[in-house]
Amino acid sequence: MTETLKPDWIAVDWGTTNLRAWAMQGAQVLGRASSGQGMGGLCSDGFEPALRALIGPWILHGNVPVIACGMVGSRQGWQEAPYRSVPCAPMDSALTRAPASDGLSVHIISGLSQDNPPDVMRGEETQIAGFLQLNPGWDGVLCMPGTHTKWVHLSAGEVVSFQTFMTGELFALISDASVLRHSVAGDGWDSAAFDAAVGETLARPEKLAARLFGLRAGQLLAGTEAAACRAALSGLLVGAELAAARAYWLGQNMAILGTGTQARAYRDALAPQGVSCLMVDTERATLAGLTAANRLLKETT
Amino acid sequence: MTETLKPDWIAVDWGTTNLRAWAMQGAQVLGRASSGQGMGGLCSDGFEPALRALIGPWILHGNVPVIACGMVGSRQGWQEAPYRSVPCAPMDSALTRAPASDGLSVHIISGLSQDNPPDVMRGEETQIAGFLQLNPGWDGVLCMPGTHTKWVHLSAGEVVSFQTFMTGELFALISDASVLRHSVAGDGWDSAAFDAAVGETLARPEKLAARLFGLRAGQLLAGTEAAACRAALSGLLVGAELAAARAYWLGQNMAILGTGTQARAYRDALAPQGVSCLMVDTERATLAGLTAANRLLKETT
Repeated sequence: MTETLKPDWIAVDWGTTNLRAWAMQGAQVLGRASSGQGMGGLCSDGFEPALRALIGPWILHGNVPVIACGMVGSRQGWQEAPYRSVPCAPMDSALTRAPASDGLSVHIISGLSQDNPPDVMRGEETQIAGFLQLNPGWDGVLCMPGTHTKWVHLSAGEVVSFQTFMTGELFALISDASVLRHSVAGDGWDSAAFDAAVGETLARPEKLAARLFGLRAGQLLAGTEAAACRAALSGLLVGAELAAARAYWLGQNMAILGTGTQARAYRDALAPQGVSCLMVDTERATLAGLTAANRLLKETT
Repeated sequence: MTETLKPDWIAVDWGTTNLRAWAMQGAQVLGRASSGQGMGGLCSDGFEPALRALIGPWILHGNVPVIACGMVGSRQGWQEAPYRSVPCAPMDSALTRAPASDGLSVHIISGLSQDNPPDVMRGEETQIAGFLQLNPGWDGVLCMPGTHTKWVHLSAGEVVSFQTFMTGELFALISDASVLRHSVAGDGWDSAAFDAAVGETLARPEKLAARLFGLRAGQLLAGTEAAACRAALSGLLVGAELAAARAYWLGQNMAILGTGTQARAYRDALAPQGVSCLMVDTERATLAGLTAANRLLKETT
């Protein structure tokens, strides 16, 4: 089936744990493919074979350009694409060419860095560019939930500042590997427990440290349900993040990138604060950003 | 060598990850032994063999009583020793007998629980009892650094209240398994970075969430040394704990159980707040507590 696809370019989102590719004709998706060969598991000479294994059938008919974003451009990636320093537009036309054998031309989009406080992103800049393609002239703050959630202040088409929180990674570590794993097992949810926990740490962020072990003790002594423990752990962490990110959302025009559980958790945590958020599909933003990069590449070559 | 020991009782501290035993004559230590056969790695029928493997040579000459504290008395342990609810003395004479074959009598010390806020301890109650043996009539707050640090309010020989913080476990998880592992590798230390980080989260606990990823970004962009990142991570976590535990240390008579790196970190974090702490050796307190339990056992049998 995929052998018959004849894309005119290929879009790639290559993160730490996953590799995703789309066969594209202009802005239209002809096909999709993905694998677990993320940057984190590859040596420097493993990138080309991993990419060819995934998109081989799409490039049988000639060399079509590949536009890639994400950790593939980090120092441990295929080829380092230097950070661009904010304030700046999320993307420019200076893509970095990765070394590849005949028949493959791979162009990597640069990530963004911020000097003070120090921060970095790789991949999200492409989603931001795509979000701005989909919402021209939009000013405000974009919340991008993930393993490392980013809060991004956008104004006049530029990234003014941004901040990264490890909330998603902390939730995964604590619920999978700490003593709380016994108490939060499963994938249940309890909205009331989540809301209450968000309220606690948003009002008093020191409660995060104070309350964690109590989730375990509450389950031992009072038989608190795992779903309530799980939602409370998430709420305590998200509330602490909101307390720290207050300047990003208080009185701001807000959008959240994502439509899954995690994105909805942020939306629900912000709602009682009187903040309503535009919800945007991540894949749509990623593809719009990669499509804009492909257009920039064509204009400059 | 150890075959010649003839203890009149055996002291055991059996935690989640380690099993430690002392051959005792009254309050005098004749010998020491330890293994990695902690509660966490044992099935219910694995406790007796693990103990016999360690103390076998000490019980060749007859049945000597074994007094044990720690997670060995949990539901997943050898035999559940019911919690005693605070406020109460750290220890009483009601020890729980573990099922064992002939020639072995094992008595387990109960842990303590607190209803509101829910909290539990197993093992620390014995150290508290020992601390009070070594410091009769001492009133104040005992800080017990560890994987799960306990803050314990003592008055008139009773535990009035206590609170557990997962700071030690969080530090281990974040520095071993999160994206920060690349930035905090090694075992170096930077006192100035620690002090500054404690000050940040003690004054503004929401800084914990805000600053974590910045440690990674600071190392990528500005080449921050691993020792400074490591000390800053510790400081951010300890400062957040101190902010939450303020009622336990502000204006209180304080002692810290421990003399290692972690105990000194708490001492150094509290010093700028005008709090000076009595430093107490953990093994001494543990043995004094187990010795007191052995005395109580003899008085009641």
